Amino acid sequence: MLLPPGVRSLICLALEEDLGRGDLSALAVPADASARAKIVAKSDLIVSGTDLISTILEEARVPVDWLEIDWKDGAQVKAGTEIANIKANARAILGVERTILNFLQRTFGVATQAAEFKKRIGDRKLRVVDTRKTAPGWRYLDKMAVRHGGLWNHRFGLDSGILLKENHIRAAGGIAKAIENVRSQVSHGVEIEVEVQSLPEAEQVIQAGVNIILLDNFSKPDLEAAIPVLRKQKPDVVLELSGNVTLEKLDELIDLDVDIISVGALTHSVSAADISMLFELSNDSPL
Amino acid sequence: MLLPPGVRSLICLALEEDLGRGDLSALAVPADASARAKIVAKSDLIVSGTDLISTILEEARVPVDWLEIDWKDGAQVKAGTEIANIKANARAILGVERTILNFLQRTFGVATQAAEFKKRIGDRKLRVVDTRKTAPGWRYLDKMAVRHGGLWNHRFGLDSGILLKENHIRAAGGIAKAIENVRSQVSHGVEIEVEVQSLPEAEQVIQAGVNIILLDNFSKPDLEAAIPVLRKQKPDVVLELSGNVTLEKLDELIDLDVDIISVGALTHSVSAADISMLFELSNDSPL
Amino acid sequence: MLLPPGVRSLICLALEEDLGRGDLSALAVPADASARAKIVAKSDLIVSGTDLISTILEEARVPVDWLEIDWKDGAQVKAGTEIANIKANARAILGVERTILNFLQRTFGVATQAAEFKKRIGDRKLRVVDTRKTAPGWRYLDKMAVRHGGLWNHRFGLDSGILLKENHIRAAGGIAKAIENVRSQVSHGVEIEVEVQSLPEAEQVIQAGVNIILLDNFSKPDLEAAIPVLRKQKPDVVLELSGNVTLEKLDELIDLDVDIISVGALTHSVSAADISMLFELSNDSPL
Amino acid sequence: MLLPPGVRSLICLALEEDLGRGDLSALAVPADASARAKIVAKSDLIVSGTDLISTILEEARVPVDWLEIDWKDGAQVKAGTEIANIKANARAILGVERTILNFLQRTFGVATQAAEFKKRIGDRKLRVVDTRKTAPGWRYLDKMAVRHGGLWNHRFGLDSGILLKENHIRAAGGIAKAIENVRSQVSHGVEIEVEVQSLPEAEQVIQAGVNIILLDNFSKPDLEAAIPVLRKQKPDVVLELSGNVTLEKLDELIDLDVDIISVGALTHSVSAADISMLFELSNDSPL
Amino acid sequence: MLLPPGVRSLICLALEEDLGRGDLSALAVPADASARAKIVAKSDLIVSGTDLISTILEEARVPVDWLEIDWKDGAQVKAGTEIANIKANARAILGVERTILNFLQRTFGVATQAAEFKKRIGDRKLRVVDTRKTAPGWRYLDKMAVRHGGLWNHRFGLDSGILLKENHIRAAGGIAKAIENVRSQVSHGVEIEVEVQSLPEAEQVIQAGVNIILLDNFSKPDLEAAIPVLRKQKPDVVLELSGNVTLEKLDELIDLDVDIISVGALTHSVSAADISMLFELSNDSPL
Amino acid sequence: MLLPPGVRSLICLALEEDLGRGDLSALAVPADASARAKIVAKSDLIVSGTDLISTILEEARVPVDWLEIDWKDGAQVKAGTEIANIKANARAILGVERTILNFLQRTFGVATQAAEFKKRIGDRKLRVVDTRKTAPGWRYLDKMAVRHGGLWNHRFGLDSGILLKENHIRAAGGIAKAIENVRSQVSHGVEIEVEVQSLPEAEQVIQAGVNIILLDNFSKPDLEAAIPVLRKQKPDVVLELSGNVTLEKLDELIDLDVDIISVGALTHSVSAADISMLFELSNDSPL
Repeated sequence: MLLPPGVRSLICLALEEDLGRGDLSALAVPADASARAKIVAKSDLIVSGTDLISTILEEARVPVDWLEIDWKDGAQVKAGTEIANIKANARAILGVERTILNFLQRTFGVATQAAEFKKRIGDRKLRVVDTRKTAPGWRYLDKMAVRHGGLWNHRFGLDSGILLKENHIRAAGGIAKAIENVRSQVSHGVEIEVEVQSLPEAEQVIQAGVNIILLDNFSKPDLEAAIPVLRKQKPDVVLELSGNVTLEKLDELIDLDVDIISVGALTHSVSAADISMLFELSNDSPL
Repeated sequence: MLLPPGVRSLICLALEEDLGRGDLSALAVPADASARAKIVAKSDLIVSGTDLISTILEEARVPVDWLEIDWKDGAQVKAGTEIANIKANARAILGVERTILNFLQRTFGVATQAAEFKKRIGDRKLRVVDTRKTAPGWRYLDKMAVRHGGLWNHRFGLDSGILLKENHIRAAGGIAKAIENVRSQVSHGVEIEVEVQSLPEAEQVIQAGVNIILLDNFSKPDLEAAIPVLRKQKPDVVLELSGNVTLEKLDELIDLDVDIISVGALTHSVSAADISMLFELSNDSPL
Repeated sequence: MLLPPGVRSLICLALEEDLGRGDLSALAVPADASARAKIVAKSDLIVSGTDLISTILEEARVPVDWLEIDWKDGAQVKAGTEIANIKANARAILGVERTILNFLQRTFGVATQAAEFKKRIGDRKLRVVDTRKTAPGWRYLDKMAVRHGGLWNHRFGLDSGILLKENHIRAAGGIAKAIENVRSQVSHGVEIEVEVQSLPEAEQVIQAGVNIILLDNFSKPDLEAAIPVLRKQKPDVVLELSGNVTLEKLDELIDLDVDIISVGALTHSVSAADISMLFELSNDSPL
Repeated sequence: MLLPPGVRSLICLALEEDLGRGDLSALAVPADASARAKIVAKSDLIVSGTDLISTILEEARVPVDWLEIDWKDGAQVKAGTEIANIKANARAILGVERTILNFLQRTFGVATQAAEFKKRIGDRKLRVVDTRKTAPGWRYLDKMAVRHGGLWNHRFGLDSGILLKENHIRAAGGIAKAIENVRSQVSHGVEIEVEVQSLPEAEQVIQAGVNIILLDNFSKPDLEAAIPVLRKQKPDVVLELSGNVTLEKLDELIDLDVDIISVGALTHSVSAADISMLFELSNDSPL
Repeated sequence: MLLPPGVRSLICLALEEDLGRGDLSALAVPADASARAKIVAKSDLIVSGTDLISTILEEARVPVDWLEIDWKDGAQVKAGTEIANIKANARAILGVERTILNFLQRTFGVATQAAEFKKRIGDRKLRVVDTRKTAPGWRYLDKMAVRHGGLWNHRFGLDSGILLKENHIRAAGGIAKAIENVRSQVSHGVEIEVEVQSLPEAEQVIQAGVNIILLDNFSKPDLEAAIPVLRKQKPDVVLELSGNVTLEKLDELIDLDVDIISVGALTHSVSAADISMLFELSNDSPL
Repeated sequence: MLLPPGVRSLICLALEEDLGRGDLSALAVPADASARAKIVAKSDLIVSGTDLISTILEEARVPVDWLEIDWKDGAQVKAGTEIANIKANARAILGVERTILNFLQRTFGVATQAAEFKKRIGDRKLRVVDTRKTAPGWRYLDKMAVRHGGLWNHRFGLDSGILLKENHIRAAGGIAKAIENVRSQVSHGVEIEVEVQSLPEAEQVIQAGVNIILLDNFSKPDLEAAIPVLRKQKPDVVLELSGNVTLEKLDELIDLDVDIISVGALTHSVSAADISMLFELSNDSPL
């Protein structure tokens, strides 16, 4: 899938904030020198967002002699692996080097963390999904990297899914009324999900004919109590749970009979993947 | 300092990616209801970027009944502290809630981590500075938050400082030539810094009349050997060191006689600060 | 709901294409004259999109002395009714007059046509919905006006709903495979709808566990045969029908047991509502 | 003539509103499948705006294997005629299909309606022209399609022609003064046109040395009375008439001795031309 | 007349290129200090473009305590005269000072030079007009300043007037054909002007029924020979002359019987007007 | 160095202001005609900004058959020299002709004036530099052209260099305090420069440890008195002088022992270089 316009806008912002009126240090390098640059993993990681490389080069208007991407998004690579290989004007590569690395260190970082969660799930039917707690400007890329790590996405934004929370319910005057307000207005293709704090609330949701319930911050015993009740009342109910789930906490919850666990940290607390760009002298240039 | 246009562009991207064609869930809430919302710290943190709140509300065209920011940027607050207080239309607040939180959880997170480094430095003259390893689109905000945490910035971008690295030097044909190429072309107000891998290289830099040297990935013994030599050759030399410096590693290096330590993790690996938005029923509304 | 950024972009395009480098004819009018202008219905119509008036004035940077909108969106008014009342600088009003009227003549036109369909439906549970056959740039406004006319929207765009058609199915290698491909990748909150050309295809859709079926271009007898079969196989199936439905054709189909009828002409073939702007001399101006 | 930047902006708005964060349904189709698509007329129509096809593909960044446009703008084609032929990635074509069709169904629709008017004019010297009553954002395309249908344009916008109406005249304090105000300020290359409601007003316009007169909403007898008087007073006067002119009304007015008849409905009330996109399996793809 | 969107875009470019990521020198000034600043003429000049001041402050988002503009556009002021008076935050004023001065030094410079030409014309009916030789991005402002200096504009751009030159004529295959090609396609409100190099060419233009002739680079004797011939053939012909006209050359040509003289240097070679911004300590601030 | 995004934005503004909705005069030329156009110097000049030609053609989306640039930026050419050679569609060339010439007549003009200054300097170590007094929107291009003329740039903008002036010093409460305020906050790579009005002020600057001093509007005798004192106090001090320096005044000052002379007129008062575009009939076209 081609990168959407918002990602191109973010790339332009990134190039402008790093390059500004031009790279002063590159004046050290002969204007006509060309260089070969490799992007290399310096730790084990999951590849994600490799289309960014050509898009950044394109938005920066760098004429590229060649560009090889060695791995598909989602690939798992070892430290030391070459991920991409670029040949172009040396000053131009120096000008986009950090922008490319800054993008990929985050997309690879998100995917690599997601893959840790995926590994714990194994063959279970359980979906671990992300949230809307993404870095502003990064919604598309953060969610893309979660998928490359083997997980799934929750709704993309406020317009592509419905999640009724406590505030909606109080303002509407109750669960049934909140659901009715929304159902009468939205398209038939969008499902409603309701976040609840207790089993009785969950039961009201089922009575209102809604299929997806988010059990928010339930303790493990409360989950163990609630889930069978709800499953019995509505066998095809979709149950999601959330609340500061970490890798460790996931292990505790993983065999509960829920369909979905959402994890904010997948995108709100990300460690950069360790990658770098290595230059080689190009045979056919004075470099 | 007012937020620069790039930050407003990032806010617009963020609003578009979350709101899209409008908040479907908010249809549960009466269109005319108004609400009071508090932004509250859920852990100890450093406040940073509070101007973002009014700017986001402005870019989202939310008419605001009142907006109180309770703390200045740089303030240290305890878990449970109210940070800001907004009254506006309930649907409108719901529409910007996550965008505001997503911005602040990162700026607060960066500042809070920076303050940990600052605490270790104490009264030393040493500067711990950031790098260009920021989240794309976030250069200004990431660097601002570093300052709010009590630290300093390295150069903003490729056009606002010169740092000659191995690639520049090889392409130019040596340290002296690289420096000369740049010095003959740039304005008299921009200083040159050169990254070196060894003491002999550092000595060449001094001979070329350059004042700022980055000792990259030197071992501690190598640093202990090199620093006095360089200080003797040029008493007013500015010495920077870098290389995957963590809080722990900082403790080891902190009493070396260097002027600057640069730390990529300040902005490339950030944990979101824990904050949330709480709603209150507004007396003068049906909510 | 506030107008989304895409609508503001469209307003800016519209102002630029009409005003360009400024209104030459307005040079006939004294620069300081102020005027009162009324927007008046010249035929019976449904009001829709009145927020556009203030937004256009704002984007055109017209300082407004007062602005009164006399009717809410969705109101039905008679020919001769005043809809809005503006007082501002005379040259400025002349400069935005046609832009305002060009927007409203289409939004009112869409809503008025939609209301004709709504009138036929009466109290039935049937939803008549729009399609994606909107004027490019106008998706939000066209769909908004359909709601103001009393009808409902189908999916907003390709990213906010799933509708699998013949091409998807052939390319995937069958209905079951197409559904599986999508279901394994998209968020749990988005429902799948499948378009079919025959009853056996519809039965396959139900077997694949999908709930929403679009019966495309079925003849009336075919509909009468298929509907009870499908209802029996899956009582809660959602049935939509489509295919060049006009007001006349709606009357024929209206009592079939379907949930949704989609109508492209609601937005692809629109007659402008007849409205105009009348000026009055302002007492406190030389005009 | 290349499409101006405003049209590209409109195309981008259109792609964003339809594609958003990407086509969910296209996930049913293998990512590498390619397809051949034909745009086909489903009723008799006039072709207009075929440059839009390549421009949309370009703005959507779809790499195109081939693109054939079979007809020039202005061509008259029968139902069933192939108009264009595209080969590209299947998901990509699905992603732009509706945007392309939504543009062309309007441009073809405008041109087809215009051609009906042109047919009535035959060889007469009379020009039927459009007005500024275009769909906002569509001024250029609507007026282009009118020309492709064989008619002419009135002024493009407020800055590219002068038309003094009742409000200008009252505000200026009379016809002579309004004309003088404008004439003393504008460039020598822009002609003045004045709209009048009566013969005496028209005579004042001629006395003021203006050459183009718009007779607005005159009855046919009033036209028959006024035209010879004006022609006698100024043989080279340019006479335009306007006022809700339809095809039927045109037949009544067509042999009056006027130079121009302007018709708002040419662009404010447009029926979509009936076109569709047909897919074919591509031999060299798994599709 | 409000400044059109292109001017706002130019202001944004100007602010970005000067302010970038923020004013480093302003860090010397207390963040809360406020200041009063006067814009003062340092030589005699014509005021032009004073609306730019508030627009720049607005685009830079500077909250203004007060802003007084002391003179209307077109006013002639002596060296030492105060032109505007601003009170605002001191850092903010420092941040926009040079942008405001850079705009006004050019608009004042253009108007001041234009006024020199106007002074020579005195009460003659002759119009001295500008050309399209403006600074890119500055078309509107350059032409506005020409008017404030008392002169007139030629066409704004390629779309708002027709001037057929040698290349058009050769490509069309002759004067008559070139005129016919254009006349058959453009709106009735746009006049055609033809540039000629000789009297016989001018005569062909008149025979083709065109009213406006540009005599390009004719010598004075050739002009004296041609003008009466053309006036006799068509008494109401509009005659323009052009060709590196300076103030000195104007004096030679000023009593020829032509209607228009166009002067490229009015906008292509401009000396900045000498203006500066003076700060005063504000009583109610720590400054 | 590739042109930065701000220059592309300026090009787009320039194309829009000249082309608007399309070139009316070009309708005289057959749509398919192609033409060869030469850009020719009509006086001796320095070439600067030739990358603009291809960038303008690219932004205008003109398909180019060939484009030859005959000279490098900085070349000195005689009147009559061909500078570039373009072959493309004739209408398209006519559409961009004036935009290309308007850009180059200014960049060539700036470079040509700068070269006059450079010629006076000869082999001296003295740098003549520009200021921030550039045409708004033109900062990058004006400063580029100054370099092509053989001179140097002062700081690019407020964010890429520090120059403390009288207002900063008064607001801070003295020279030492102003310097301290800035030094404690900015990155170690940006040098501070202070503008002074007297020798005692200059001495304070040196005492505060600052290396670069701007002697503003000193008389020649005052300079002759101050310079040796300052050189003695700090041998490596960098001395700049400024104040309405013209070519004539430069000759007087040229042998003073200063490092830098800054000249506002280099960019604020520019005469257009005399260039034109000549068309030739293309053998392979009907033209």
